[in-house]
Amino acid sequence: MKPNVKPLGDRIIVRRLEEAEVKKGGIIIPDTAKEKPLEAEVVALGTGKKNDDGKAMPFEVKEGNRVLIGKYSGTEVTISDVEYTILREEDILAIVG
Amino acid sequence: MKPNVKPLGDRIIVRRLEEAEVKKGGIIIPDTAKEKPLEAEVVALGTGKKNDDGKAMPFEVKEGNRVLIGKYSGTEVTISDVEYTILREEDILAIVG
Amino acid sequence: MKPNVKPLGDRIIVRRLEEAEVKKGGIIIPDTAKEKPLEAEVVALGTGKKNDDGKAMPFEVKEGNRVLIGKYSGTEVTISDVEYTILREEDILAIVG
Amino acid sequence: MKPNVKPLGDRIIVRRLEEAEVKKGGIIIPDTAKEKPLEAEVVALGTGKKNDDGKAMPFEVKEGNRVLIGKYSGTEVTISDVEYTILREEDILAIVG
Amino acid sequence: MKPNVKPLGDRIIVRRLEEAEVKKGGIIIPDTAKEKPLEAEVVALGTGKKNDDGKAMPFEVKEGNRVLIGKYSGTEVTISDVEYTILREEDILAIVG
Amino acid sequence: MKPNVKPLGDRIIVRRLEEAEVKKGGIIIPDTAKEKPLEAEVVALGTGKKNDDGKAMPFEVKEGNRVLIGKYSGTEVTISDVEYTILREEDILAIVG
Amino acid sequence: MKPNVKPLGDRIIVRRLEEAEVKKGGIIIPDTAKEKPLEAEVVALGTGKKNDDGKAMPFEVKEGNRVLIGKYSGTEVTISDVEYTILREEDILAIVG
Repeated sequence: MKPNVKPLGDRIIVRRLEEAEVKKGGIIIPDTAKEKPLEAEVVALGTGKKNDDGKAMPFEVKEGNRVLIGKYSGTEVTISDVEYTILREEDILAIVG
Repeated sequence: MKPNVKPLGDRIIVRRLEEAEVKKGGIIIPDTAKEKPLEAEVVALGTGKKNDDGKAMPFEVKEGNRVLIGKYSGTEVTISDVEYTILREEDILAIVG
Repeated sequence: MKPNVKPLGDRIIVRRLEEAEVKKGGIIIPDTAKEKPLEAEVVALGTGKKNDDGKAMPFEVKEGNRVLIGKYSGTEVTISDVEYTILREEDILAIVG
Repeated sequence: MKPNVKPLGDRIIVRRLEEAEVKKGGIIIPDTAKEKPLEAEVVALGTGKKNDDGKAMPFEVKEGNRVLIGKYSGTEVTISDVEYTILREEDILAIVG
Repeated sequence: MKPNVKPLGDRIIVRRLEEAEVKKGGIIIPDTAKEKPLEAEVVALGTGKKNDDGKAMPFEVKEGNRVLIGKYSGTEVTISDVEYTILREEDILAIVG
Repeated sequence: MKPNVKPLGDRIIVRRLEEAEVKKGGIIIPDTAKEKPLEAEVVALGTGKKNDDGKAMPFEVKEGNRVLIGKYSGTEVTISDVEYTILREEDILAIVG
Repeated sequence: MKPNVKPLGDRIIVRRLEEAEVKKGGIIIPDTAKEKPLEAEVVALGTGKKNDDGKAMPFEVKEGNRVLIGKYSGTEVTISDVEYTILREEDILAIVG
């Protein structure tokens, strides 16, 4: 379910995946790996970063992409009892799969 | 009621919403979430950020928008007994709804 | 009375308003609000910020404007027994009224 | 084996080489050299850094290259039980061989 | 008396005025105002800041101008037993009179 | 002997000279001069810094040049039992001779 | 005697003048002035700072100029038993005489 929130600029909303979900995808981050990146799913793209002409630049990720993000990247927000993270696209390390 | 104040440049005035107001909108931030973003209503847009040609850039938010902002973003000001926050548009994380 | 001083560049001279003066204007900053912005009156504009062609950019505020400034913005100076603050225009949060 | 992950922008995925592997290549980093650069193998290139026109810049390294990287550069990630490092190309010191 | 020294770039040499001299001019900085700006006289302009074409930009102050400068701005130098301050033009707050 | 390593971008590999070698060249850095620059020999140039058009800029130093570098500049690396330093060209202070 | 060393970029080599030498020139820096600028003689100019087109920009100082430099500016180097300082031209405060 997509949250009813539109990020501004180059921000993106992701939902961090639980370990059970991640295992299906193949990347396993053990509980003890405190500083390691985590897997998350992109649930909403922002309005896009504007270049000098005021034109929005396209995103490299799409809704539904599984991505790796730093454990402490972005800002957490709770929408309809679900925890999401709002972060900038440049803080996404890689697309999984 | 719109405050009698015009922000300068890319600044915006918002009114932070009480939990009761927020519940109607669907995003519930529990009291214990000390560092999480808060919901607020845009009440006044600034004069606009000037580009190199001295032309004001348009805002992405409008008056009346509900937005998510960081708990410690911007500067608080009291106008006619109401608390507002003056912040830059780039400090707005997302538009709600 | 306008002080006999011309700020350089995008600097502006303002006179901070006493609480009695502010009450007339409608924004009341209680004494206990130590970090909140204060109301001030613009008394002199600078020579203007130069762009790359050496042309001075116009100011958004005018002499006589009431403005909100951060409590610790700018540098205080005493001219003919009156305390003024010299600050850059970008440190002015909003125009009042 | 190439991991099932695509880095974003100018990021690169490398696999740090064990001392046994490095010895074959000729550069020996003794165990006691704690702050010295390490040898690694490039296993995946990112989507490329975009210039102002939105065009991706080519990488200077290729998959399979052996490279020297700083001991604390980048972010570690475990994919299918193998440890990799995601880092930016500018953090690669040199290509070996 | 003009010191026998030519500042480089956008630097300026000023002589800080004693309180007795300042009183004539109208701005009185009491001894207790430790962090407040001080009045000084411009005694030499630099060679001028170069723009990207290598052309020197004109100064906004002239030799002989009385200016306000921060108490801790610039570098002090003693020339022929007189104390001067070398500072950049952007550190001059305002021209007096 | 040139090491089997190609630096990336504007990086350069140098071999720091022992005092015995330096004496021949004329610059003597006594053992007690802990923070002073050291003499080194350029052994490999990088791929070159790219300008905005993606074109590599030429180096000012050449292989074989004796150069002065800061004692703590760059990163040390051991290749075939020889200690080298990888540093950026802008960290080279001067060419000797 | 000019040292056998060519600075790179916008660097310059100067020789700091002893108090006896300085007295002839007219600027006397007493021993107790620990943080004050010192007088020095320019003995070698660098290869010149490159602009975006790769063209070297001319220096404002010439060999033989007496200059004022900050006491802690630049890096000291000993060449043929003489102490010199290598610093960037922008760290030269003024030309004397």
